[in-house]
Amino acid sequence: MENPFLTPRLREIVQSNDSSALQDLCASLHPGSVAEFLKDLQIQEIRHILGLLEPRLGAEIFGELDLEIQIELAESMKRQELARIVNFMSHDERVDLLKRIPEEKQETLMPALAQVEREDIRRLFSYEEGTAGSVMTSDYATLSPDQTVREALAKLRREAPDKETIYYSYVVDQSRRLVGFLSLKDLIIARPDKRVEELMHRDLIYAHVTDDQEEAARKIAKYDLIALPVVNGRGELVGIITHDDAIDIINQEHTEDMEKFMAIAGSHETGAYLRTPPWEHFKNRCVWLIVLSAMGLVSGYIVQRFEGLLLQFAILATFMPMLADTGGNTGSQSATLIVRALAVREISPGDIMKVLWKEFSVGLPMALLLAGLAFARVVFFAGSSSRPQGYPLSEIGLAVGVALGLQVLTSALIGALLPMAAVKLRLDPAVVASPALTTVVDITGLFLYFTTVRVLLGV
Amino acid sequence: MENPFLTPRLREIVQSNDSSALQDLCASLHPGSVAEFLKDLQIQEIRHILGLLEPRLGAEIFGELDLEIQIELAESMKRQELARIVNFMSHDERVDLLKRIPEEKQETLMPALAQVEREDIRRLFSYEEGTAGSVMTSDYATLSPDQTVREALAKLRREAPDKETIYYSYVVDQSRRLVGFLSLKDLIIARPDKRVEELMHRDLIYAHVTDDQEEAARKIAKYDLIALPVVNGRGELVGIITHDDAIDIINQEHTEDMEKFMAIAGSHETGAYLRTPPWEHFKNRCVWLIVLSAMGLVSGYIVQRFEGLLLQFAILATFMPMLADTGGNTGSQSATLIVRALAVREISPGDIMKVLWKEFSVGLPMALLLAGLAFARVVFFAGSSSRPQGYPLSEIGLAVGVALGLQVLTSALIGALLPMAAVKLRLDPAVVASPALTTVVDITGLFLYFTTVRVLLGV
Repeated sequence: MENPFLTPRLREIVQSNDSSALQDLCASLHPGSVAEFLKDLQIQEIRHILGLLEPRLGAEIFGELDLEIQIELAESMKRQELARIVNFMSHDERVDLLKRIPEEKQETLMPALAQVEREDIRRLFSYEEGTAGSVMTSDYATLSPDQTVREALAKLRREAPDKETIYYSYVVDQSRRLVGFLSLKDLIIARPDKRVEELMHRDLIYAHVTDDQEEAARKIAKYDLIALPVVNGRGELVGIITHDDAIDIINQEHTEDMEKFMAIAGSHETGAYLRTPPWEHFKNRCVWLIVLSAMGLVSGYIVQRFEGLLLQFAILATFMPMLADTGGNTGSQSATLIVRALAVREISPGDIMKVLWKEFSVGLPMALLLAGLAFARVVFFAGSSSRPQGYPLSEIGLAVGVALGLQVLTSALIGALLPMAAVKLRLDPAVVASPALTTVVDITGLFLYFTTVRVLLGV
Repeated sequence: MENPFLTPRLREIVQSNDSSALQDLCASLHPGSVAEFLKDLQIQEIRHILGLLEPRLGAEIFGELDLEIQIELAESMKRQELARIVNFMSHDERVDLLKRIPEEKQETLMPALAQVEREDIRRLFSYEEGTAGSVMTSDYATLSPDQTVREALAKLRREAPDKETIYYSYVVDQSRRLVGFLSLKDLIIARPDKRVEELMHRDLIYAHVTDDQEEAARKIAKYDLIALPVVNGRGELVGIITHDDAIDIINQEHTEDMEKFMAIAGSHETGAYLRTPPWEHFKNRCVWLIVLSAMGLVSGYIVQRFEGLLLQFAILATFMPMLADTGGNTGSQSATLIVRALAVREISPGDIMKVLWKEFSVGLPMALLLAGLAFARVVFFAGSSSRPQGYPLSEIGLAVGVALGLQVLTSALIGALLPMAAVKLRLDPAVVASPALTTVVDITGLFLYFTTVRVLLGV
């Protein structure tokens, strides 16, 4: 809450139980500020305060509360009490709420709602999660092509309290097909007797109900829109997605990307860490851990194959962790850059040669530098490790250095190649998770390591 | 571009060089759609087309082009040609552009601009990167408290073409101090003779020029704002940040978080992978690689310390990579969840005990499961590895299993603990990068591994 004087004032009025003073104060505040104040109170107190407010204002503030508090409130409220709020909630938010309350509660609630609201809820309910349809709202403003600007403004003025936004209006024909778009700015600048048809923009940017929600959010971001219209297969306008929903979608997708990248499975909901039960966490994380640890078997086989070499040069074991870590780190770095560049559409799968060349030109100096450091480390710090007679430290250092250099260079290339290949195969590049990559470069790295040592030392 | 018929039409008009037809068509399209079409043309062609359009429309379309294309165009344009565009560009976008063109070009351009634009550019230039001041724009709409609604609407109508948005207007007193806020919706609903003072919202949500841009973007997201006002130390309104800027900031911060998390240093600009020269990439990535590879030395010392054990039980080397990988993966998973939960403010540093308890309750079953699998793996697949007489595979399997279980549990806890500790120390939790974490749990893991084996096998 921005204003430090409002909280005590609000608390005072709540205690005095003065319904009209409360209504006045809350109406003058941003509903988000009131929600911020309410969220620290007991559920029964919040319920009491919401009951004192006019239903529309109560619904607005209710909609700003965290979804968990909304659910708790909904479960504690009587049927009529909840219906009073739900009737006035924004159409997308109430569907989000209803999806998360128990089915019995939903069923007892529905008959208490107006029929038109019931039908609206059922329609929004029907779209698959993750689609544009599932995040859109149906409380948008429409105009018809033959209205005058004066008529259009009068309609918007009348409908303003019930619409998610009146800054963008959508022009539809008799069969509700989307034919144009007008902003409130266009309308207030225009001459009042102009017709909507003459003014409207016909170059429409829109989404289909079945489009991915992320595609829709990206359009809102790209074209700096306040809202994006959503049409069905027949081109009829069925909803809009607003700029604030776009931010929520983008945040949710970020969380998903990061979790996928770290090999965490399951469905991802922003802000669910503490609420998610341990069993869910266990399932989401375990699958990949097991798969990757099974891939670790392959690394094990390589070590086992070179066991003789390792017994002869125990000093080699000392540098195994460093080699594996550095390879994993280098690979993760390039994979991160590539996954992100693919996500923001900076590069496309066709750029594969450019990307590999870039990684090669970055990887080569890194390889040389790290190889030099590894050589110095062996020569100066590893004197006490056991090694057979006739192999001076400098030779072993050279072998370790060359192996590490090769590991850095190949890891940088593999880290770039795997996400690019995933996109070519129409997979999400983030599935080439950093842990998976680490495991892959472990395998290639150990093989390179032992082979290089064998070749250079001639054993 | 949404409409497949527009591109050929645009191309046709461009070829016929019909300036007024081009102006009409471009005015009817979203500037983003025109920019989408232009970006595939040669710089000289784009320059020619922009020159045919009215300056305001040309500037709008120019602003929708990628920053790189803008820079190239700016560098190829004559002084007056560029000034014509820059005069009409949105105030924040032109500052972004000027920051990135060579200083000589800036200096020759400035005298060609109107004085008021010059001063505005200098002011916006002066804010530090990453602050709210550096991303705000100064083309916002203001009202004064004593205006009537009728006067206010007339002013907005007049100023609309020059303002970034007229949907939110800010009410300022004579000394430009921000005292209230009104939306265009409030204004068109209100009676025309009401005064701004009577209607305006006094519960202001705003940012300070020196605030972090991410804080500002988060307020826009939280309160579903179209724009957020920015004030200076004296409470004077100096700019606004709009909803579309908030999305850009959120995307940029996400890239930064991911790169930090993967131990990539340096300044991060969205969409810069291919443009960044190899030398920059090298610098950004190398520092951490070297630091981490130096930390690998510690793992090396642990291996060296237990060299005798390793020579006796070469079979142990086979499971070293699996142990290191699994620890790194488990730790990265919990770190990712915690860093993200901290970033979206779902948990705070005070929740440390709750978080550790959650990680313990998730980590314990994972540890048991993976320990069981490791035991089975040793017993069934490692028969051929060399080990001394008198130590049955089942005993070695038990030791490896217990060690892996301990590694999984401690890694999950360390992965959660490090980012929480970073926040307590007022560091960015993402600095506890996944590679750094991997290196840490490698060290703890190897120590646990050899110690467990020693204790359980009694050697």
